[in-house]
Amino acid sequence: MPRHPNQPLLLTPGPVSVSRTTREAMMTDRPAGDVEFQEDLSFARRYLVSLVGGGEAYTAIPLPGSATYANEGVIASLVPDGGKLLLHSNGVYGDRLVEICTHLRVEHSVVRTPPFTPPSAELFEQMLRADPGITHVMLVHCETSTGVLNPLEGVAALCRAYSKGLLVDAVASFGAIPLDARRLGFQAVTLSSNKCMQGVPGVGWAVVHRQALENAKGQCRSLALDLWDHNQHMDRTGGFRFTPPTHVVAAFAQACREHAAEGGAHARLARYSGNWQRLVDGMRQMGFTAVVPDRFASPIVATFREPTHPAFSFQALFDGMKQRGFIIFPGRLALADTFRIGCMGDVTEHDIGEALQAVAETLAAMGVTQFGRDEVALIDRQ
Amino acid sequence: MPRHPNQPLLLTPGPVSVSRTTREAMMTDRPAGDVEFQEDLSFARRYLVSLVGGGEAYTAIPLPGSATYANEGVIASLVPDGGKLLLHSNGVYGDRLVEICTHLRVEHSVVRTPPFTPPSAELFEQMLRADPGITHVMLVHCETSTGVLNPLEGVAALCRAYSKGLLVDAVASFGAIPLDARRLGFQAVTLSSNKCMQGVPGVGWAVVHRQALENAKGQCRSLALDLWDHNQHMDRTGGFRFTPPTHVVAAFAQACREHAAEGGAHARLARYSGNWQRLVDGMRQMGFTAVVPDRFASPIVATFREPTHPAFSFQALFDGMKQRGFIIFPGRLALADTFRIGCMGDVTEHDIGEALQAVAETLAAMGVTQFGRDEVALIDRQ
Repeated sequence: MPRHPNQPLLLTPGPVSVSRTTREAMMTDRPAGDVEFQEDLSFARRYLVSLVGGGEAYTAIPLPGSATYANEGVIASLVPDGGKLLLHSNGVYGDRLVEICTHLRVEHSVVRTPPFTPPSAELFEQMLRADPGITHVMLVHCETSTGVLNPLEGVAALCRAYSKGLLVDAVASFGAIPLDARRLGFQAVTLSSNKCMQGVPGVGWAVVHRQALENAKGQCRSLALDLWDHNQHMDRTGGFRFTPPTHVVAAFAQACREHAAEGGAHARLARYSGNWQRLVDGMRQMGFTAVVPDRFASPIVATFREPTHPAFSFQALFDGMKQRGFIIFPGRLALADTFRIGCMGDVTEHDIGEALQAVAETLAAMGVTQFGRDEVALIDRQ
Repeated sequence: MPRHPNQPLLLTPGPVSVSRTTREAMMTDRPAGDVEFQEDLSFARRYLVSLVGGGEAYTAIPLPGSATYANEGVIASLVPDGGKLLLHSNGVYGDRLVEICTHLRVEHSVVRTPPFTPPSAELFEQMLRADPGITHVMLVHCETSTGVLNPLEGVAALCRAYSKGLLVDAVASFGAIPLDARRLGFQAVTLSSNKCMQGVPGVGWAVVHRQALENAKGQCRSLALDLWDHNQHMDRTGGFRFTPPTHVVAAFAQACREHAAEGGAHARLARYSGNWQRLVDGMRQMGFTAVVPDRFASPIVATFREPTHPAFSFQALFDGMKQRGFIIFPGRLALADTFRIGCMGDVTEHDIGEALQAVAETLAAMGVTQFGRDEVALIDRQ
């Protein structure tokens, strides 16, 4: 008997499960120019700025689509012709920033590091020293493809010391890992309406320093993604310049209200951390190995090695979990047979307990027994 | 007593009202990689291609965001470096295509004509003859800011005769005004998930000729809007390359099923035409003047002049209509005091009858009486 016959719990890196009340905010067709809609929009914009303590110096700009649009919008809007962006990649989302720059024909250089650990901030300092042409640095805060948390504090300190513009892809962390605009001094941070904010997917957001945005006036390589233009229109009229996804925006405002009611980013971090610890402890007890060392892991998603037991297959695990009402996610790393279980969304430790029970049942059903310490030892010796 | 106390009927150029069943498709959080979701996506893609009779030669590509993204994606993907785009504008949406080209730095020339009538196809022929550097032509099929229907058939014939790539912004017409890919021979046509397709807003779509798309490989100026890249990924994996707005896509698949059940584009055109005729007849009986001559008007939206009666104000009309459960829309034309009433969406002639009654009640409440033939005569003499 599945836990949620028609509504499985999504334990994935995204889309994540959201509350019923958030989905219900989508049950009204609302005109984009109406007072109620614009109040929701205005509230959501203010709330996001308040989450980073941005005050009057920052503005929040929604970009309908996905967080990739927000990342592209930030790069296309804020890095001028003649500018150069330093990128880092230790996973899929770092690589995506490189692809964005290639398409936009934005000059950039890339430092690549291995996937299961964060880079040192010193590496960034070497790059900045070696190439004075660099004007901006963009960092993926939490690399969703592994769960590794990259060294935002250290990179932010370097950007201040070397007077570089800091752009942060916080798509997987915003809303759960507190970010302080004044301390970090970023020009822009991007997020998703889904993920840790627990709205439905469909809008990427950028929280941008107003002065950096004003300096970017007229330089965006795209109309659809022109952050300066969207912001001036929204500040002036209270509404979107182009027809917005009204239902998704209404759900996001509701998600923000629920984020505040839960106690903000600190409370959400505490819940996700509880989920993550319970998950990793339970999986280890069954014999699984988490590939990211705990000290580098974020409580967003955990990546596990597939057991080498001959009866194990990820598809069978996926199917068994789905039958029991849980959706898990395959790995995205070519270098290892891994899979991921998410800790984000409308998910509690109790849910994680049930998911662990479902993993145990599924393993038993596929005949994966005697799997554990010996195999872990074997993997660790590789 | 409002008609829909908590769910007013949207009689606007968009977002439009959709069916309850379409909204209810958003009540499940679905994983983007799941079979059910990918079946919905695949069905929607095939359905859109079938609506234009595109067969194997065309593919449908969703671009999360809005129809403006789809227009920008089509231009950024299909007009190569060294290409030149001929644009026409007789309203806000023609102007927007010009803005897109300016941002993308795509070479273009523009022919502007007055707002309340379509241009002649001959005008396009003059432009094509005068400038052999033009490689593509983009036409707004139905100009939503007025409701004027532009001469797609004639422009398509010219594009065939002069071997130019034809791009069509069919955002306001797709799904209600039948489009025949084989007869028109367009390279791409864009649409909204909302408007005449009656899904919720949040995804723009492009239906693109596969050969034109293949020729565009690697040339898009954007990663987020790279139609070639999205299409190859979707054809290969069955899913989106970036996290999709899962709820909006599910609603769109439901909207496509309802579009088919209604009888396709011809049936929808018949219903909208009935709405439009009833609306324009009823408004004229009250003394209003429609600004677009009937022979150029599309049954999508009707634009009316504001009466010059001293007691009339658009805000009072808007508020009175809203109290009675209907949302109408201000005009977007600087040159005349106009307002618009939409005929699209989950709207019947019966609804239009109720809306007309609400207009009459609101006029009476604001004391706009004795307004009609004399004033119409006055306006016509201007």
